[in-house]
Amino acid sequence: MGSTVGITAPAGFRAAGVEAGLKDSGGRDVALVVNDGPRKAAAAVFTRNRVAAAPVLWSKQAVSDGRADAVILNSGGANACTGTEGFRNTHTTAEKTADLLGLSAADVLVCSTGLIGVQLPLDKLLPGVEAAVSTLSNDGGADAAHAIMTTDTVAKQAVFSGTDPSGRTYRIGGMAKGAGMLAPGLATMLVVLTTDADLPAPALDAGLRAATAVTFDRTDSDGCMSTNDTVILMASGASGAEPDAAAFAAGLTEVCHSLAQQLITDAEGASHDIAITTVNAASVADAETAARAVARSNLFKTAIFGNDPNWGRVLSAVGTTDAAFEPDRIDVSINGVQVCRNGGIGDPREDVDLAPRAVAVEIDLHAGSERATIWTNDLTTDYVHENSAYSS
Amino acid sequence: MGSTVGITAPAGFRAAGVEAGLKDSGGRDVALVVNDGPRKAAAAVFTRNRVAAAPVLWSKQAVSDGRADAVILNSGGANACTGTEGFRNTHTTAEKTADLLGLSAADVLVCSTGLIGVQLPLDKLLPGVEAAVSTLSNDGGADAAHAIMTTDTVAKQAVFSGTDPSGRTYRIGGMAKGAGMLAPGLATMLVVLTTDADLPAPALDAGLRAATAVTFDRTDSDGCMSTNDTVILMASGASGAEPDAAAFAAGLTEVCHSLAQQLITDAEGASHDIAITTVNAASVADAETAARAVARSNLFKTAIFGNDPNWGRVLSAVGTTDAAFEPDRIDVSINGVQVCRNGGIGDPREDVDLAPRAVAVEIDLHAGSERATIWTNDLTTDYVHENSAYSS
Repeated sequence: MGSTVGITAPAGFRAAGVEAGLKDSGGRDVALVVNDGPRKAAAAVFTRNRVAAAPVLWSKQAVSDGRADAVILNSGGANACTGTEGFRNTHTTAEKTADLLGLSAADVLVCSTGLIGVQLPLDKLLPGVEAAVSTLSNDGGADAAHAIMTTDTVAKQAVFSGTDPSGRTYRIGGMAKGAGMLAPGLATMLVVLTTDADLPAPALDAGLRAATAVTFDRTDSDGCMSTNDTVILMASGASGAEPDAAAFAAGLTEVCHSLAQQLITDAEGASHDIAITTVNAASVADAETAARAVARSNLFKTAIFGNDPNWGRVLSAVGTTDAAFEPDRIDVSINGVQVCRNGGIGDPREDVDLAPRAVAVEIDLHAGSERATIWTNDLTTDYVHENSAYSS
Repeated sequence: MGSTVGITAPAGFRAAGVEAGLKDSGGRDVALVVNDGPRKAAAAVFTRNRVAAAPVLWSKQAVSDGRADAVILNSGGANACTGTEGFRNTHTTAEKTADLLGLSAADVLVCSTGLIGVQLPLDKLLPGVEAAVSTLSNDGGADAAHAIMTTDTVAKQAVFSGTDPSGRTYRIGGMAKGAGMLAPGLATMLVVLTTDADLPAPALDAGLRAATAVTFDRTDSDGCMSTNDTVILMASGASGAEPDAAAFAAGLTEVCHSLAQQLITDAEGASHDIAITTVNAASVADAETAARAVARSNLFKTAIFGNDPNWGRVLSAVGTTDAAFEPDRIDVSINGVQVCRNGGIGDPREDVDLAPRAVAVEIDLHAGSERATIWTNDLTTDYVHENSAYSS
């Protein structure tokens, strides 16, 4: 009957996750997700990084007709900056998957994650594809979620359940990976979303763009946009449910939000999860810009690591943006204590308790009525250690 | 006869640096620089941060007439985000200095550095001003350079000597501080430049803008722009020399470059000084943009800390910019080894020696003929430690 969580929770999907020997650390490293239909609609969003990996170039093309029958994913190598040989390897991987499943290669999407600038060893990857095909099952979602992990310490899965106007139940499932190079530009490292709702590709696309814009796009752990970011949504139609666009987008947003939060919670070396909310901005764009500037301030992030409610570093970051505000009107609260009032000294910073992992920063620009939250992490000695010792 | 290096190397200047008890760490914390003329021309550039400190707001106004007779500087407190009380304290400091020296307060510039969001203790600062005035001397430059240090471990001074078309010798001296929040927007933390050349304020202003644009503006240690960045240039005319504009700007650039390099070498927690040069860019702006994106990539900076020539992180950073380039044309060399060729795998990364402190990264965009260098540092566990433990 499928899983209760993850990409095989919706009907009409099988998945697998196997060990092909791609990761030095060992463990599952090849994942496969197959849409058994009856509908095989799909949409996807990709990194805005202009240095895009071979699998991104391939998948962008393959999904452009609104159809995807399967996604083959690997960790242990990003296949980015690998030239024509790298693109050929992606093509070969899609063809191998298609042949074994009796599909067209043009309907097989490919995702890769790991070190940039090394070729994938096909002598390991292709046998891995065979093993994945032979172990596909309708409760293989968890294995797949494990197989796409790199420096992630836990697998990330989510599920949403809804009913359409005729009372038919549908589900949306998802899996994600992404522990570093985590500042998605329209997507995050790798995410696969599945649904058994009966929706055409344009509706999937609209829902996906709406959901990612307020979830993954507002997740900014370390300011570094990856070359491989991909979010794929596939619909099987197996439930027969036909939810309306708004309800489906809301459910999809819930799944994406859950996965994005799991990404932040498991970000490399982090000891605090920080939600930076700008309120009373002149525009949503202004609200995002101001919050993101703070999320990218190494000085602010190290202060939080040190449990120091250093609001001066919030203001100095906001001050570098072109958001609408008057410097002497800004208020800042950290974990509920208004440490900055009218751009100056507010309540005592000693009153702020930064012991909990969760930190909430609220910046009131007093320039309008829009708001946005950016989710980030603190900058820790563990982050530096992990990223100086681990090539990715 | 004045000093051989620093702000009292040019004739016509006196300086002092005294201990007023502003810094928890102790040591000199109030500096004073006086221009004894006969000319008292000045120019200055300030932070582009819209959250500007009280002394920045004061000095910007005071120097707008092209004249400055003295600069009073303190460490131990930035006087930023301190509201009307903070501005009043800056005003009081300028007036006290002016009274003791027989000047107009409107000709006294003020600079502050230290923690944002706390008021300066005038009961310590004003006696410090008195002590500084009473110890002014024409070889006080080194004391002043020490008094503006915060987390700096060494004082930064420089000097240039030139001759004008009539064979008259002139000098340009300088001092600087700035160890964190070091990504100057038109200036760096605090810099005072002096010259005994006989030049009017517009010539000083033109030279200063030309010099800072290619030195401090291209220094980006941690991506965090300060609220207090100030570079002040004062001319005494005491040498009688009248260098032509280009020669003076070149000498000034040399002094600024020296000070900027000293800032990078002493940046908080750094273990590598990194020069990132973009060549063959379509424009100087593109060259700067691409190099700065790499300079601000925490993943690139941690890789260098780990002596890992991870060129994939260079490409993924360049890929986030709007500079003109084709992803499959980019070349990257690290310390002379061309690790990336045509956007793909080049010479073995094992050939790169990252043991030396100095690291040179060259990015060839193959899109034009312009170039620019951004100077930065690696991101180290010491940086995180220092900035989580030290409020600034």
